[in-house]
Amino acid sequence: MKILVIGGTGTIGAAVVAELKKRHEVLVATHSKGDLQCDMASEASIQALFAKVGKCDAVAICAGNVHFGEFSKLKSSHVKVGLDHKLMGQVNTVLIGLPYIQDKGSFTLVSGILCQDPIREGTCASLVSGAINSFVKGAAIELPRGIRINAVSPTVVAESMSVFGSYFPGQDPVPVAKVALAYVKSIEGLQTGQVYPVGY
Amino acid sequence: MKILVIGGTGTIGAAVVAELKKRHEVLVATHSKGDLQCDMASEASIQALFAKVGKCDAVAICAGNVHFGEFSKLKSSHVKVGLDHKLMGQVNTVLIGLPYIQDKGSFTLVSGILCQDPIREGTCASLVSGAINSFVKGAAIELPRGIRINAVSPTVVAESMSVFGSYFPGQDPVPVAKVALAYVKSIEGLQTGQVYPVGY
Repeated sequence: MKILVIGGTGTIGAAVVAELKKRHEVLVATHSKGDLQCDMASEASIQALFAKVGKCDAVAICAGNVHFGEFSKLKSSHVKVGLDHKLMGQVNTVLIGLPYIQDKGSFTLVSGILCQDPIREGTCASLVSGAINSFVKGAAIELPRGIRINAVSPTVVAESMSVFGSYFPGQDPVPVAKVALAYVKSIEGLQTGQVYPVGY
Repeated sequence: MKILVIGGTGTIGAAVVAELKKRHEVLVATHSKGDLQCDMASEASIQALFAKVGKCDAVAICAGNVHFGEFSKLKSSHVKVGLDHKLMGQVNTVLIGLPYIQDKGSFTLVSGILCQDPIREGTCASLVSGAINSFVKGAAIELPRGIRINAVSPTVVAESMSVFGSYFPGQDPVPVAKVALAYVKSIEGLQTGQVYPVGY
């Protein structure tokens, strides 16, 4: 398959690319380096990415910014960071990318454990992850041409514990390679409308 | 209790107001008529509403617009209708209203069955409902002063079947009075961070 991975150089993205490259042609899009750049917060940038990539069999997204911060200090603008980037960035990738996806192709989005297992300062991430999971369920039943869509919802990954560990007291982290397997399940399997929790 | 019901004249809102009025002082805000008006898509309008209402014990929201339409015709602007109104309208009501809520008071938001049980043309509603449910879970663990937050997630109500029934083939509708009971459970009970499915 020809697979576009958006956010393919982050902790999760690099693992997904490494796993998929064993069997597929993988194109890696990043925010600001390399041949294929994409700012998911910009519809024009997503359009330009697909115009450059052309037809592909699968799109996997491993990117998405959200604001982390104390609830009592949250403003609308903080919530909108995640709405514009991790939420609408992924939704727009599906809406804009759809004509470029081959029949029976797939989209794999990323949500996260916080949709159901919240942490301190994580409300914006909770909100966006819940939205992604439900978007996937809604979209799956209407996508044309046998195109599928799933979400991978990981807990905190072991490789990021030095950065995020203090936010996740008592949380058993998952090796990022296991998150990559969930992307494989979505892309190479036949299921649609599924949320794959990883590590919880 | 002094309770503000936003969207208190719709099908669900009127039932919620009727039930709460039996035991509480209820203030009813609507989009465009009556003493208390509120356009949930406008932060200034929400600010003005709370400035007029002042301190209260509970806020119940029974309003929220989303776009319904075929997935293959969806554009970013269609998704944003629900983000601006049903999602950020409710989120902003919590963020702006928080200082007005008495200690141990509560917010009760509305989501809907489509977060997990999608229908034709309902992807935008699915997305927003999933976001609301996860927002409530995230916010609940950080709200100060014993303030609680829950979401009521109804299936289609019997009283709206003449309008929406064709979207819900095979769906058993719920009498709106049962939806009102879920609001009572949220407001008069002590639980927080809960999603109350009604009729499914």
